[in-house]
Amino acid sequence: MYSVNVRDHFMIAHSFRGEAFGPAQRLHGATYVVDVELRRPELDADGMVVDIARATNVLRSVLGELNLRNLDDDPAFAGRNTTTEFMARVVFDRIAARRAAGELGVHASGLSAMRVCLHESHVAWAAYEAPL
Amino acid sequence: MYSVNVRDHFMIAHSFRGEAFGPAQRLHGATYVVDVELRRPELDADGMVVDIARATNVLRSVLGELNLRNLDDDPAFAGRNTTTEFMARVVFDRIAARRAAGELGVHASGLSAMRVCLHESHVAWAAYEAPL
Amino acid sequence: MYSVNVRDHFMIAHSFRGEAFGPAQRLHGATYVVDVELRRPELDADGMVVDIARATNVLRSVLGELNLRNLDDDPAFAGRNTTTEFMARVVFDRIAARRAAGELGVHASGLSAMRVCLHESHVAWAAYEAPL
Amino acid sequence: MYSVNVRDHFMIAHSFRGEAFGPAQRLHGATYVVDVELRRPELDADGMVVDIARATNVLRSVLGELNLRNLDDDPAFAGRNTTTEFMARVVFDRIAARRAAGELGVHASGLSAMRVCLHESHVAWAAYEAPL
Amino acid sequence: MYSVNVRDHFMIAHSFRGEAFGPAQRLHGATYVVDVELRRPELDADGMVVDIARATNVLRSVLGELNLRNLDDDPAFAGRNTTTEFMARVVFDRIAARRAAGELGVHASGLSAMRVCLHESHVAWAAYEAPL
Amino acid sequence: MYSVNVRDHFMIAHSFRGEAFGPAQRLHGATYVVDVELRRPELDADGMVVDIARATNVLRSVLGELNLRNLDDDPAFAGRNTTTEFMARVVFDRIAARRAAGELGVHASGLSAMRVCLHESHVAWAAYEAPL
Repeated sequence: MYSVNVRDHFMIAHSFRGEAFGPAQRLHGATYVVDVELRRPELDADGMVVDIARATNVLRSVLGELNLRNLDDDPAFAGRNTTTEFMARVVFDRIAARRAAGELGVHASGLSAMRVCLHESHVAWAAYEAPL
Repeated sequence: MYSVNVRDHFMIAHSFRGEAFGPAQRLHGATYVVDVELRRPELDADGMVVDIARATNVLRSVLGELNLRNLDDDPAFAGRNTTTEFMARVVFDRIAARRAAGELGVHASGLSAMRVCLHESHVAWAAYEAPL
Repeated sequence: MYSVNVRDHFMIAHSFRGEAFGPAQRLHGATYVVDVELRRPELDADGMVVDIARATNVLRSVLGELNLRNLDDDPAFAGRNTTTEFMARVVFDRIAARRAAGELGVHASGLSAMRVCLHESHVAWAAYEAPL
Repeated sequence: MYSVNVRDHFMIAHSFRGEAFGPAQRLHGATYVVDVELRRPELDADGMVVDIARATNVLRSVLGELNLRNLDDDPAFAGRNTTTEFMARVVFDRIAARRAAGELGVHASGLSAMRVCLHESHVAWAAYEAPL
Repeated sequence: MYSVNVRDHFMIAHSFRGEAFGPAQRLHGATYVVDVELRRPELDADGMVVDIARATNVLRSVLGELNLRNLDDDPAFAGRNTTTEFMARVVFDRIAARRAAGELGVHASGLSAMRVCLHESHVAWAAYEAPL
Repeated sequence: MYSVNVRDHFMIAHSFRGEAFGPAQRLHGATYVVDVELRRPELDADGMVVDIARATNVLRSVLGELNLRNLDDDPAFAGRNTTTEFMARVVFDRIAARRAAGELGVHASGLSAMRVCLHESHVAWAAYEAPL
């Protein structure tokens, strides 16, 4: 299995609901450094997993929808806790939708799986992975 | 599959037995930077893989049993080489036992697997992973 | 010149005022990974720059005053843009005050300078340094 | 499953053919920081996944065949694009051949899988993994 | 003293002349991960060292002149060894010229010094720093 | 001012004397990842700060005297606490002596200063720097 990973980041405010979150129930924020790993069993005719420039642009565009915002105000997340693991799934789903719409290009047709990892600090991160 | 990772470290002395270890048969030591990755197929009602504060505390407590000691003096490791990969398993088993005892909280009931990785330098690390 | 560095982090929400900040004028947030470097010309009798356990505790305590909050609501920062470089100075001043109050212990009397660096992402950070 | 990882690097020149590569069709170069992860289900009698000194030496030797060269001039890659993911497979195959020739030592007989990851920058990397 | 650092990278081919360079006299290449640290004694009225978006854009533009090229073909470097430390100076001089031309904006007038560091691998880097 | 940095590591056992060290008075150990930064005002005729291959070899040789040992048994450190900052000075002095003996080569004659930094974990490090 081959894989290619690209990295970018976004910065948001949010708060959590539920006693389990303790002081994180207060409005606070985070920088998420995002790794997107794309996998496929065989390389294409150009020797690629994916066009890395396109992957970088798609990631930047998806994160641009979230960057420099208060997630508590985003109707897409109403009633949900925007934990790091939840946001990893959000980024996964949005990149998968872009791929389905052809934005990753012809090189992306052979992709079989993706993993999205959000680093919230030097000591904690969360990820979501699934077949494509 | 979702995952959450927490990081901490411990510092120990030890020596190895067996010609394969060369000069590492002498008493020496290591800093182990430890990554614990906890996995589950679906998030719980709070949108969590695990209560990250509890996971951090359990990791700190498990590493506290080993930290700032000479592993050659620990009866738990008598007759064993405390290699990095062996110690990854030790940390895995001890966290698994804490989870079984309820120390990771109600959020941890849905965990399906764990990976423990011990970084011994900027150029070498070892890990153990298994279902829970 | 000797130095010792300890690292911790905090997570906050904030917004900026001024056209120069563009979309960062919206409420958003950041994780700041903080490095505190303490310097002195000669080691003390124990061979230390500073008691690293005390330095770690003081840093944790100072960051605890800021962690998991909206800086826009903190009267201490009224009318100021809480940029990364500004916050580096805030952390510097608060650690310096703790040292003046004796919280860094007797080992800290010989310190001559400090540098506080806040990493806001994998591609950007800011620092403040000055004599003590 | 246990794993051990060793890291080294190599520096090469190359160019790509195909419109998908844009300006990377020009002769340029890269530093590849290489991680080799070796996996096995159980430790051997010494408590090892693999003799880490041998693994480090084999990796250094394999990378030495590629280091400080122009890959466009290497007959082994004639007619191929030496993308990061392609080179991950090259390093994988060459280490696997060294293992088959006994260079990883008796400790390597129980290895079941390998992953080779080439980091080309702080924001991009590629990998190849397969059973052994 | 305050400072702000931004990071980007570029990938080049080159070769060296002189016996001291050994096998690096062959055509090879490198990824350089570049850190640019800008310093000033006091913050401006907005609480900034520099407009970080402008600094990022200027760095990207300067590196774009070098990226994905063979430095041996660049007339600007004729007769010179493009070592990492030499290239750190090149990037320094080009950013300094952009600042002199006003590209860093009004926020950059108070800058007093700059440091440019080029990371060529996980074990080696070089830098140039000077007053502005 | 120009600088070049090389990195390597060593692994030791030791213990400390003095109440200030708390549980670190027990025999334990550490991995030290070592950065050596060499500085000079101008590049030499080859465009170098120092022959990086020689610098790497000298560092490896100096660390080889310390690696995989119990520092408590080394007569060179009798009656001293081998703290991270103390060991940074030891490595500094030994590299300086190698340079004085000509081991860094003719390129090293123009060096004006050195900084040695020992990373003991992902959250703590210590350094010593001085003119040469």
